[in-house]
Amino acid sequence: ASIVLLPGDGIGPEITQQAKRVLETIGEIFGHEFTFQSHLIGGIAIDETGDPLPEATVQACRNANAILLGAVGGPKWDDPSAKTRPEAGLLKIRKELGLFANLRPIKLFDQLIDASPLRREIIEGTDILFFRELTGGIYFGESSRSGSGKDETASQAMVYSVGEVERIVRLAAQAAKGRDNRLTSVDKANVLEPSRLWRQTAARVMAEEFPEVEYDVVLVDAMAMHLINRPSDFDVVVTGNMFGDILTDEASMLPGSLGMLPSASLGSDGPGLYEPIHGSAPDIAGKGIANPLATILAAAMLLRHSLNADAEAVAIETAVGDVLAAGLRTADIARGGPSVSTEAMGDAVVNQLK
Amino acid sequence: ASIVLLPGDGIGPEITQQAKRVLETIGEIFGHEFTFQSHLIGGIAIDETGDPLPEATVQACRNANAILLGAVGGPKWDDPSAKTRPEAGLLKIRKELGLFANLRPIKLFDQLIDASPLRREIIEGTDILFFRELTGGIYFGESSRSGSGKDETASQAMVYSVGEVERIVRLAAQAAKGRDNRLTSVDKANVLEPSRLWRQTAARVMAEEFPEVEYDVVLVDAMAMHLINRPSDFDVVVTGNMFGDILTDEASMLPGSLGMLPSASLGSDGPGLYEPIHGSAPDIAGKGIANPLATILAAAMLLRHSLNADAEAVAIETAVGDVLAAGLRTADIARGGPSVSTEAMGDAVVNQLK
Ligand SMILES: CC(C)[C@H](C(=O)O)[C@@H](O)C(=O)O
Ligand SMILES: CC(C)[C@H](C(=O)O)[C@@H](O)C(=O)O
Repeated sequence: ASIVLLPGDGIGPEITQQAKRVLETIGEIFGHEFTFQSHLIGGIAIDETGDPLPEATVQACRNANAILLGAVGGPKWDDPSAKTRPEAGLLKIRKELGLFANLRPIKLFDQLIDASPLRREIIEGTDILFFRELTGGIYFGESSRSGSGKDETASQAMVYSVGEVERIVRLAAQAAKGRDNRLTSVDKANVLEPSRLWRQTAARVMAEEFPEVEYDVVLVDAMAMHLINRPSDFDVVVTGNMFGDILTDEASMLPGSLGMLPSASLGSDGPGLYEPIHGSAPDIAGKGIANPLATILAAAMLLRHSLNADAEAVAIETAVGDVLAAGLRTADIARGGPSVSTEAMGDAVVNQLK
Repeated sequence: ASIVLLPGDGIGPEITQQAKRVLETIGEIFGHEFTFQSHLIGGIAIDETGDPLPEATVQACRNANAILLGAVGGPKWDDPSAKTRPEAGLLKIRKELGLFANLRPIKLFDQLIDASPLRREIIEGTDILFFRELTGGIYFGESSRSGSGKDETASQAMVYSVGEVERIVRLAAQAAKGRDNRLTSVDKANVLEPSRLWRQTAARVMAEEFPEVEYDVVLVDAMAMHLINRPSDFDVVVTGNMFGDILTDEASMLPGSLGMLPSASLGSDGPGLYEPIHGSAPDIAGKGIANPLATILAAAMLLRHSLNADAEAVAIETAVGDVLAAGLRTADIARGGPSVSTEAMGDAVVNQLK
């Protein structure tokens, strides 16, 4: 299988390197041939080509079986008057590859439960799989400016089509069947027309195609509350691009260890894109202390969703749990205790696998 | 001063009744003459007039000095195919009265700190004042449907004008000056054109008119995270309608006692509208066990913001703290311990004031 690596900016290269080693180890153990190619995205791509997503990167991604991304962005490219920004590369690759479904598992590693900002009795048992729609909604709606002075206005449209809602709801419902068989759809149908279309469409898909999956609907403001006081009540959650951006980031704080959370972005065919959900952490870039586990867990998702290699994915996830249980911690999850380097954490997972 | 009461649905009448008693007591003690008039809004207004906001209510509100609202909505009016819904009354009164600024203080009563879902060391010291823009943004943008079948699409526009941003930022910055002198503006300027206009406008207002207020900008997804892991770092927060809806509801869970949180909706002139942030709680309506304190604290905000009666507001807030310190709890904040009725809680605040 051919895998494109997009190390990106900040700590991206360091953490991607460790995930690559883990994938190579899996290849050896399970007898797979993985080929790796690195390409440019984000700030480093702007520096070298002027474009946060050069055409060569897009082409390589199209031809690959899967893509593993580190992180993009940093203060160097934050000038608001700049022509382009690293994040533009991210938005463009989602759209170019049709990656309409962003999967974000929010799962607590029991070994890290005391890192949660929530009381133990509230967070315990939390295991949510978010499906965020990623190529539609207000992110890609038409935008404009008009008028001047006090009356200058700016506008951007939130748009959803029935087809867009159907495909993401189907994916989420299928995933629910392989889990606890419960799906929650989140919208703002009491205010927004696209949310009303979303709600109608989701209800129809669920009734016609997934009558056996327990289904309910929650307003986005209520969901922002429930995530804090009863996160363990949810199984699979599906929502639009903007609401998903906010809710998945909110949910990512619940386990208290951002450095442990992976995500996957999938299309209907073609390669999936896998990445940690944390950013490029420019403050610690190059110091060799970043936590590679989220990227390693993203590699596990890559095996599961793009290479149909579930046993291999489970092997990685188990190995990560084991190194945590053995007490290994990078600085971000060490809570002031002793910590190991990025590379030592990579070593530990590799050795555990062997 | 003339005060319009809009008891609304569910527990609305019970809690409004107690807040009215507290206002009457304040009137006696401080020598003010308050007149009260009750009017219809929400589900009960639909039942009696077919309209969730009858014209008589709008007229009475326009002529009043301030408005105290209970809550609207309930399962009885939840039929998605209904012609109108209780919430429509709420959206309409905001727009009709030009209530563009929604103020939501998120403050911890120390007596209730153990009710928070967050660990004590994280929540301690939290005291945020949110300013949510309430009459613009995607809530009131043009919406439409077109196409059919899989291609049917629904659209709604997020729109902000420079003038709309200026006035809410000014109010928020003024409030910051009376507090810890720090303002955070929340947007999604890396994706949305209205957010870019928001960010530019806010930066200009702050630089030109409030150079002495410490000012920063946070993306909405990041803010959803910060509220959970470092809520005590924020002072005043200003944001748009949709983001404010989500973030203020998220923040409302932090103290762990929704039944304690009031809000105010203000225009540039005319009456302000005051209400608890919790809903109509149809499950406990009529049982006499609802917590009236959020509505009583909303009455305190009414005194402060619409009647310029700050000492009176402080008297109420102090009395509420005192009854909590004395151990009085309604069921929602009793954590399984002994609890008192809605009326007994109202009595306690009234007696404490006297
Ligand atoms: C960088 C930004 C454009 C992006 C988004 O909002 O989608 C990020 O927040 C994410 O969630 O991947
Ligand atoms: C009922 C609903 C329309 C309303 C809103 O979204 O503004 C509510 O959630 C609120 O925050 O007051």
